[in-house]
Formats: sequence, structure tokens, C-alpha cells
Amino acid sequence: MESGKQIYFRNGYILTMNERNQVYENGDLLVQEDKILAVGEVASELVKPDAEIIDLKGKYLLPGFVNTHVHTSQQISRGVGDDVDFMTWLHKRMWPFESNMTEEDSYVSTLMCCLELIRSGVTSFAEPGGQFVSGMVKAVTEAGLRGKLAKSVMDCGEGLPLVWQRTMEEELEQQTEDLKRYHNSADGRVQIWYGLRTIFNNTDELILRTKELADHYQAGVHMHVAEAKSEVEYTKEVYGESTVTHLHRLGVLDKNLLAVHTVWLTDEEVDLFQEYDVKVSHNPASAMRVLGFAKIPQMLDKNICVSIGTDGASSSNRMDIVDEMWLTSLIHKGWRLDSTVVPSQDILCMATKNGARALLDEHLYGSLEQGKKADLIIINPNGPSMMPVNDRIAALVTSMHSTNIESTMCDGKWLMKDRKILTLDEDAIVNEAQKRSEAIYKRAGIVLPDRFPVIRR
Amino acid sequence: MESGKQIYFRNGYILTMNERNQVYENGDLLVQEDKILAVGEVASELVKPDAEIIDLKGKYLLPGFVNTHVHTSQQISRGVGDDVDFMTWLHKRMWPFESNMTEEDSYVSTLMCCLELIRSGVTSFAEPGGQFVSGMVKAVTEAGLRGKLAKSVMDCGEGLPLVWQRTMEEELEQQTEDLKRYHNSADGRVQIWYGLRTIFNNTDELILRTKELADHYQAGVHMHVAEAKSEVEYTKEVYGESTVTHLHRLGVLDKNLLAVHTVWLTDEEVDLFQEYDVKVSHNPASAMRVLGFAKIPQMLDKNICVSIGTDGASSSNRMDIVDEMWLTSLIHKGWRLDSTVVPSQDILCMATKNGARALLDEHLYGSLEQGKKADLIIINPNGPSMMPVNDRIAALVTSMHSTNIESTMCDGKWLMKDRKILTLDEDAIVNEAQKRSEAIYKRAGIVLPDRFPVIRR
Repeated sequence: MESGKQIYFRNGYILTMNERNQVYENGDLLVQEDKILAVGEVASELVKPDAEIIDLKGKYLLPGFVNTHVHTSQQISRGVGDDVDFMTWLHKRMWPFESNMTEEDSYVSTLMCCLELIRSGVTSFAEPGGQFVSGMVKAVTEAGLRGKLAKSVMDCGEGLPLVWQRTMEEELEQQTEDLKRYHNSADGRVQIWYGLRTIFNNTDELILRTKELADHYQAGVHMHVAEAKSEVEYTKEVYGESTVTHLHRLGVLDKNLLAVHTVWLTDEEVDLFQEYDVKVSHNPASAMRVLGFAKIPQMLDKNICVSIGTDGASSSNRMDIVDEMWLTSLIHKGWRLDSTVVPSQDILCMATKNGARALLDEHLYGSLEQGKKADLIIINPNGPSMMPVNDRIAALVTSMHSTNIESTMCDGKWLMKDRKILTLDEDAIVNEAQKRSEAIYKRAGIVLPDRFPVIRR
Repeated sequence: MESGKQIYFRNGYILTMNERNQVYENGDLLVQEDKILAVGEVASELVKPDAEIIDLKGKYLLPGFVNTHVHTSQQISRGVGDDVDFMTWLHKRMWPFESNMTEEDSYVSTLMCCLELIRSGVTSFAEPGGQFVSGMVKAVTEAGLRGKLAKSVMDCGEGLPLVWQRTMEEELEQQTEDLKRYHNSADGRVQIWYGLRTIFNNTDELILRTKELADHYQAGVHMHVAEAKSEVEYTKEVYGESTVTHLHRLGVLDKNLLAVHTVWLTDEEVDLFQEYDVKVSHNPASAMRVLGFAKIPQMLDKNICVSIGTDGASSSNRMDIVDEMWLTSLIHKGWRLDSTVVPSQDILCMATKNGARALLDEHLYGSLEQGKKADLIIINPNGPSMMPVNDRIAALVTSMHSTNIESTMCDGKWLMKDRKILTLDEDAIVNEAQKRSEAIYKRAGIVLPDRFPVIRR
């Protein structure tokens, strides 16, 4: 028998999310150290006498959710661009805010975001790029989550803040340096990926060199792709072809490309995604707020790996994957006037094992199977917002709130137990985040107009 | 000085939602018995020595939300029709479920719904119609909420369950009887309205007679209007005109018509709504799940009274107006690719004073003003899902969850304080609701297919 502490979960409604998506109605699960030893029926000889026993009493056990696109560094900018047009959002709010952040701000912002991630049952995520990977690494290490962290990389584009005007070489060197320093740190929970902000801000040469480096280091590339209508109009004008077609011509469509948003794809470009096993991060709230409607039903039909992301707090405000699952269950139906598309069971796959695949980690987590990492969540459906439950799988998508997530475990360690965060000092972080946020608004000269007349005294 | 217990709220961020939408940054509010005595700056001579003082410490004080369309009787059917087509939903799930409910089921279902309403900050709502108004009255009386209750009225239509095949006279008599018995009961919190289920199931004569009766008794008429594309196709075929145009010809468009969903309106029909001051209940989740996109930005431009509803738990699962506010802030933007339409401040109006107007109660509540009813909620923004807050008005719509609603008061009485429900036995109701729900599924012969293979032992 292996050494190490055991936790023995009993009497759960266990969604394994294995290849056949088997569910145990009254199942057990045994964790030892950071791994799952057995699922479903646990042989008694596997269980040590001193194993901690947790009686789930019918509560649900699921793999931790995977949030494949979350700007942790933007967490403390929340509210910076509500209800304004895209150019105001970008040039007058987001760029000034982000370019006025320090490494310490980035650290606190990521801590703050980790709190919301843990509370919504996320155990692994991909961050598309802040300016200070070092600050994010520190935060994720402390939070106990898994993160694929990238720098926000730009080597061209008009109107960029001075501090962001860097050459391609500088951007690539910085990333490889970060990678060498932090990749696989924190017991392997922290990994460094390459970032490409958007085709507006990335030269062809940068895109090509990024792909080479990512392949060399076996890392992924995280990129916003065909996000806005204006993006595709721009690429057509500049390159004579739309974004995905252009990326294809460059030869960078591949299984290690995590393409985010992917709203403006032609049918042929959807086929290219299928052919090259490109990974998709669908961000419904952010899409609905400004971008449009991605061809998700079509992508699912073609077995493209579609996962779910929350985007950043300045783009969709709620960094809550449970809410995004709900939205995913709504928007494609209304848009097509077909209430049968994108059913709940598909959405659970998107938020778990598809997420793991999108992050190139399907061998590690995304399902509850023997030998996989103990990344899991306990869901308590009790209460008037989720009960009565009659269709249990659907209820997890259509009526669950993140407050139903009772406990979150990553790598065999509790990050939250009975709604209490165990790895971080929640109150201190929330206070610090508010203070730093206000200070950055001030430094950046961002003044939000009053929406209602305010009487101050 | 008047008699009665006083509660003196101090140091709040008070959204009055008065005519000018004034906000007090550090304001006070005085409640006596069921009414608001003063708002903003409270003259010290108004405050009795034994007034209870509540220091809000910067928390937000808002009028209670108004949910203008919620099927309380469908609460325990939750999950009955996820991911199925509309005809399956209606004929094989919803009708069998509802027609197998008893009066006691309706009572428990409404209690269960009231729990979710109170927890999401709702103090007043309109129920479009279950079969047992008596059961709903009992529940609302106990819960302490305000409700406009109606019967689900049908006098024609194919395939109706036997128990629902009633004549026009029977339906009208039953309603007027309920009205005489229950109208203005529970200190005036309970009122009876007339219900019209949908034009599929209502004859012209019934619609006309309903309007006459509602005018006579100064009640409202609650009707699903231009809900589905198929509805408008049906009315065009049968009446040679679409639903709203037909209702106009019948002469029932009026200020006491609460028209729900209103997805399929022509521009001319939107103008008719404006002309006759018809009230609109927008239900974004339900709409997105199957119905389509209502012309809400256009309606707001024309100053039509647009309010927000959650629909029923079998149509949109989450009976959470806070989530619906968030959805309202998203869907019209993405649909039009314009991130500036339907801003947060408009949505707060929709969920408060527009709701009160839609329920013909603008003189009673919907704003925090001297002389109005003490229907109010305390919002605590603290925590990682809402903080940092930089745009306070927007944050209430774009990042608040119903869990941020700390306390709910209706008619001067606490229904929930510090997240604890005070008027109802929450655990007992949740358990009873689950039991009754399962029993109805059984009686109605509804069997939901397994979405994933289940291993039972």
C-alpha cells in the first residue's frame, strides 16, 4: 500500500465524466495524497484504517471545473467599462487601467480572482495574459489552484500605451524567461504558456515564432481569435482573408492553440478547427455583451473540443463558471429558436473534461478516474434555488448557483471546505483589492460618470 | 407623533428610485410600522427614543424588487422540461404535471417559490395563474410578500387535460369568486387579478369579458402575449392578424394589461403598446431558452413601462430576478452588437419602479419615498464575486448575485434578515417540496430519460 493520507468519500452521486460519462448513484471515491485511488465501488482492502471518512449523504461529487479563459489580472478592474462602446472600453478604460498596474497589483488581482474561482468550483484555469506573470505565479501558488499563465503579448498596433510598446524579441525573450523560471512550479500546478493578445496587436512573424517556441517547450498558445466583427473586417482588409484563414495560412492552427471567443468563423473555418484539433474557449457572457454568437452547436456536432471561460471582470463582470454554464444552456437555444441544442450533459463535458483537453491536461484531470489528480468539488443541492431536483444532470446547469458548491479540492488539498476558503485570507484580500483598484483608477485618470444624481453630504 | 415601531437605517448608500433617481451617498431612512417616514436626511425630531437603529455602514438600501411574472405553482415542477422541444415540453411534461397538482401541492409550490423570491430581494410579484388561487393565497399570506394572484384561465384549445376543460362562464365565475373572497386580504398584500393563459387557449369572448370584469373591479389582466413565433403564426392564420393587433381590435389593450414576453411584436405593435400604456414583463432567461429576443431597447426608447419577470421554474429554472437583471444587461447588447443599449440604470428602474407601475401599485412601492410602503432590501457587496466595486449602480446589475442581498423587508416586516428567512420554515418547505414533486411526477407518469449512464447499487 502506498504511503500518504487518505480521504474516503462515501454515498455520493458521483459524476465521473469518464469516457462513458458514467454516474454512480450511491458511490464511493478514495483519494490518497494528490490522486484518486478508486471510484464507484472501493475495495475495502484499499482503505487504510486511519483514512478520513466523509459521508456525502447523497451530495454530488464532480471533477473540478476548468475555466479556460480568465483574465485574473483584470479582476480588480471590474466595472471599468460597463455600458460603453468598444473603443471607449479599450482605449479610455481598459488600456489605461491595465498599463497602470504594478506587479503587486497583478498579484492581488489574481488572488482576488482565485477566490471567486475557488468559490465557483474551478480547480484549473488558463490566464490569457497580464503584464506580470511573476505576480500571477505567486498568487496561484498560494491559492492552491492550477493555472496556465501567459503574458499579454503585443508587438504592433496603434495607440498602445508607451509602457507596452515592445519589440517582438523582447516579448518572446520575456516569455521564455518566465517559462524557464516558473514552468511546472508549485508541485506542477503552475505552468507557463505563450500568449498572443489579438491579431490587431501581433505581427505574423511574432505569431510564427510563438508557435515554434510553444512546440519546442510543449506549451500551449492562448489567443483571442475572431473575437469581434471589426477584427475580421480588419484582417480581411490587411491580409485579404479572415483571422482563422490567415492563421491557417501561417500554419499555426494546431492542437496546442487555445482559440478564445471564436465568434466570427465561416463554416469552412469551423472545419479547419476540426481538422487541426484547435481548442475553443466559449465565453458566453462576454460574447453576449458585445461580440455575438459563436457557432457552438455546429462545433459540438463536429466533435471540436469546446470548453468554457469567463473572460475578465472588465468584460463580463461575473467570473463565475456556474453562471456561464447556465448562459451556455440558454443563448444557443434562443438564437436558433431550438430548445434542444446544447443540452446540459454537453455543457458539463465542456466545463470539465473538455476544459482539461483544451489545457492539454486530459491525462491529469477533468474526470474522476483511478490515477487522476484529486481535483474535485462537492455540490450540495439543498435549498430553494436548486430544489426540487428532478433531472439531476440538468439541474447542475440550469438551476445550480456557485453557492451550491460546498467544497473545492485541488491536487488532493482542500481550497474551500463548507464554503470557507482555507488557502487564502479572504477578507484581507477583498479589502486590499478594493484599495488597489481605487488607486489605479486614480493613477490612470479614469473617472466614471454618475449614472444617477448622487447627493453627497 | 404617530404610534408604531420605528426602524432607523443610518449610513447607507440609498438608491431612492424616486422620479429623479436620486442616490444618497451616506443617507438615512426612517421606517414606522409599514411605511417610510423620511429618506435621505432624517430630521431628529421624527425619531422616537426607542427606535431600533441599524447602521448600514455603507451597504446599499434599495426598494424591494418586483417580479412581474412568476409561476409560483410551477416551482416544484423545476427540471420537468429541460432541453426538449416546445410541444414535448407543453403536452408531455407541463400539462401532465400541472393538471396532476392538488390545492395542497400548489400551496407548497408557492411557499417554495416565495423562499427563492425573498432570497433574491423580491417583495412584490405577479403570478400569471395556477389552478388553485386559494393555495397560493395561503402561501403568500404566510410568506409576508405582496402578490397579484390569478387563475390560469383556458376555455378552448386542443389536447387540454380533461380536468382543464371548462367553459368560459365557469372560468369567469371562479375568478370573480376568488376575487371577492381574497382581494386585499393579508393587510392588502394579496390581490386577485384576472388571468388569460394565451390566445391559443382563450376565446375572443372570454378575453372581452375578462377585460370588462377587470375594469369593473379595478384589477389587472395578466396574459402571455406574442410569446412564441408559432403563436403569431397561429393568430395570423385564425384571425388574419398577429396577436397584439388582434387584441387591439378587441379593444383590450389598456393600462391594466400586463403583457408577458412580447417577443414577436411588429414596430407598429410596439407603438400600440406605447399609445395604450400596456405594461410589459420581460423574461430574458425564458426568452433565450426558446422564445427569441424582444424589442426591449425600442420599448425603453418609447417610454413603455418594461418590467422584469422570471417566468416559471419549468421554463427558466432560476427564479432569481438578480440573475434576470444580469441577463437583461447582456442579451440586447450581443443581439444588436451594441454594448451601450439597455444600461444598468435602466435595468434597476425596470426591476423596481417599473415593476410597481406594471402591477398598478406605483403609489404604494417601487421607490424609497416618504409615505410609501416599507418594502426594501439591504445589499452587502462585500466578497470576491462583487468586489471591487467601482461603478456602484452598474455593479448591482452586472456583478451582484442574490446572495449579496442580506435582508428583505416587506410592509415594514422582515422576511429575511442576515440571510435567514424569518416568516417561513425553510428546511421543512424544501423537504416537503421535493417529496411532493416526486409524487406528482409519479402520478402524472412523467419519466425523464437518464442523460448519462447511471450505475445503481
